[in-house]
Amino acid sequence: MKIYADNAATTKMSEKAIEAMMPFWRDIYGNPSSPYEMGQKAKAALEDARRRAAAVLNCEAREIYFTSGGSEADNQAIISAARLGVKNGKKHIISTTFEHHAVLHTLDKLKGEGFEIELLDVHSNGVVTGDEVANAIREDTALVTVMYANNEIGTLQPIREIGAVCREKNVLFHTDAVQAIGHVSVDVDRDNIDMLSLSAHKFHGPKGVGILYARKGINLFNIIEGGGQERGKRAGTENLPGIVGMVTALEDAAKGIEEYRNKLLPLRDKLIAGLDRIPFSELNGDREKRLPGTVNFCFEGIEGESLFVLLDGKGISASSGSACTSGSLEPSHVLLAIGRTPQSARGSLRLSLSDDVTEEEIDYLILSVEEAVRQLRNV
Amino acid sequence: MKIYADNAATTKMSEKAIEAMMPFWRDIYGNPSSPYEMGQKAKAALEDARRRAAAVLNCEAREIYFTSGGSEADNQAIISAARLGVKNGKKHIISTTFEHHAVLHTLDKLKGEGFEIELLDVHSNGVVTGDEVANAIREDTALVTVMYANNEIGTLQPIREIGAVCREKNVLFHTDAVQAIGHVSVDVDRDNIDMLSLSAHKFHGPKGVGILYARKGINLFNIIEGGGQERGKRAGTENLPGIVGMVTALEDAAKGIEEYRNKLLPLRDKLIAGLDRIPFSELNGDREKRLPGTVNFCFEGIEGESLFVLLDGKGISASSGSACTSGSLEPSHVLLAIGRTPQSARGSLRLSLSDDVTEEEIDYLILSVEEAVRQLRNV
Repeated sequence: MKIYADNAATTKMSEKAIEAMMPFWRDIYGNPSSPYEMGQKAKAALEDARRRAAAVLNCEAREIYFTSGGSEADNQAIISAARLGVKNGKKHIISTTFEHHAVLHTLDKLKGEGFEIELLDVHSNGVVTGDEVANAIREDTALVTVMYANNEIGTLQPIREIGAVCREKNVLFHTDAVQAIGHVSVDVDRDNIDMLSLSAHKFHGPKGVGILYARKGINLFNIIEGGGQERGKRAGTENLPGIVGMVTALEDAAKGIEEYRNKLLPLRDKLIAGLDRIPFSELNGDREKRLPGTVNFCFEGIEGESLFVLLDGKGISASSGSACTSGSLEPSHVLLAIGRTPQSARGSLRLSLSDDVTEEEIDYLILSVEEAVRQLRNV
Repeated sequence: MKIYADNAATTKMSEKAIEAMMPFWRDIYGNPSSPYEMGQKAKAALEDARRRAAAVLNCEAREIYFTSGGSEADNQAIISAARLGVKNGKKHIISTTFEHHAVLHTLDKLKGEGFEIELLDVHSNGVVTGDEVANAIREDTALVTVMYANNEIGTLQPIREIGAVCREKNVLFHTDAVQAIGHVSVDVDRDNIDMLSLSAHKFHGPKGVGILYARKGINLFNIIEGGGQERGKRAGTENLPGIVGMVTALEDAAKGIEEYRNKLLPLRDKLIAGLDRIPFSELNGDREKRLPGTVNFCFEGIEGESLFVLLDGKGISASSGSACTSGSLEPSHVLLAIGRTPQSARGSLRLSLSDDVTEEEIDYLILSVEEAVRQLRNV
């Protein structure tokens, strides 16, 4: 049996998204900024994609900025808020200890420029609360940035509540929704979100393309200067095939989100129950407040590295956590943030499912992890 | 007859490049940072692409950084040089008045940070000389950035000479080679280039992917922070399909560069001669020092806008100059830089050919432009 159980790292492209891209390489390949018919057709497709993306997120088309991915969107959102903050004498930024590095490293950069970065502690269940954010907000807070769902352990944050707190206190609120979009319902209006980042390849769209949503009135700071694309806020010839592929996958994911949830929740919970039965195993993050497809466990006395090598041998693609930091010898900052010891954090395994997973595959996953853990403990 | 004569804006993807991308969406879709077999296969393909790109540019694989395109590469190169300059007390940057906006706007940003930006005038033939660069270099010069070939008029700069001057004076040299790569022979070693930007969609590769070459020892500044991809210098999950498509197109272009030149030069010169015969027409830029496929003319008393609308009606896709600034009411900064009046600059037409162009098509281009100009002048 072959199971790709690392969909939080990246996903297989949907055939529909691949098909949607094709005409934009072969036929309508013109530059959307060009004045002739093919350019204008490309432009129309670009703006159509923007409207469709806006409809999914429940915002206006002009609030959608196409980027090269989630990391770029995170960088641009945070730096934009920081630059706006400076204009208003605000240099305090609130985030959490377990954000993605695209957020944390951008905040580090700002710290070097004199910003005060306050990282909220995360509870042992992998969640921060709206109250904690509210208590941290000050007069000089320029931005709150809290991820929608954690990329390693899959826990969902109370984004609507945090957004409401920020709106009430008139503080910009950004969320890295890279893991959430396509997996849970996200609505920037309902959720009180000012800026949001997403990445196409996390929901069966192409790699190398993403979206920064920024509420109208927010003056973005360019991190890529040049031509006047994306209303002058993101230079570079638009990756139209990628954008069309992304929006196709985004619409499909949004349309199927209830079905996805209904199918995956029982399978996820079966997987959790099965791994729970392995001695000295512990689920990382809240049992309920989590993505429908992501499970992360620590197994005492095990090196995660060896575990996924064994699983690989059994046809299972899985990882210890973030692909972005794999190869690093440091224990996961996310697992440390929820209170795991460095030792325990090294024995982690993330399984992130796709919607085509079967119950039989869940059984095989449980059995394989059980066997692998036993084997490693016998060594 | 349908002729796409705006290959300087963007190109049609080669079927070979499309085919090369396919397996990386459908089969080897793993994240190159992932530890299991499919991730490692992706990693191997990524590093293979890096080696192949390095072989084309004549550099080492570790000197290749994959980006989302030429604009990002330009931004990162220039900002990196500026940050390095500051460390050494150097805040003077030399460039030219007719660079792409990805360069000029980045320099504007640095000007706002206190850098002294010196833009060299361009001769009426659209060329700057090595001596002019040499004379401008000072003790505190942090960077020289001069484009390899101009994007609007297609003139080639004496890059090897400028590079030699910079090397002798120990100043970093960056070139925006977006228009040159795949069209003329570029060799970073022979040409004494420290940093170079290129964009895949200008040589029949995919949109949304490019390369920043940076000579080893140059400590790049991250403009996108996050995961440790690209040796820690460019965060974000690698766009592996795009990268493989790009390198496939790059190799093909490099392999065929002599043939391309031999085929296009006489056709280009025939086109120039034909357009020369139109009364009150003038070639923009040097007759010899130009890309094999790019021709740009001013026609007195004509609005470029109306000209390419008429040509569009005749099945010809062409533009007045840069796609990135089309729609702008400003006359082209490139044409002003070579001494055209604003009035004359508004009557410009760029024709940029692909290697599948035929002599018959050249005849049709000449005839169509002639007719269109006559028609507009009769109004």
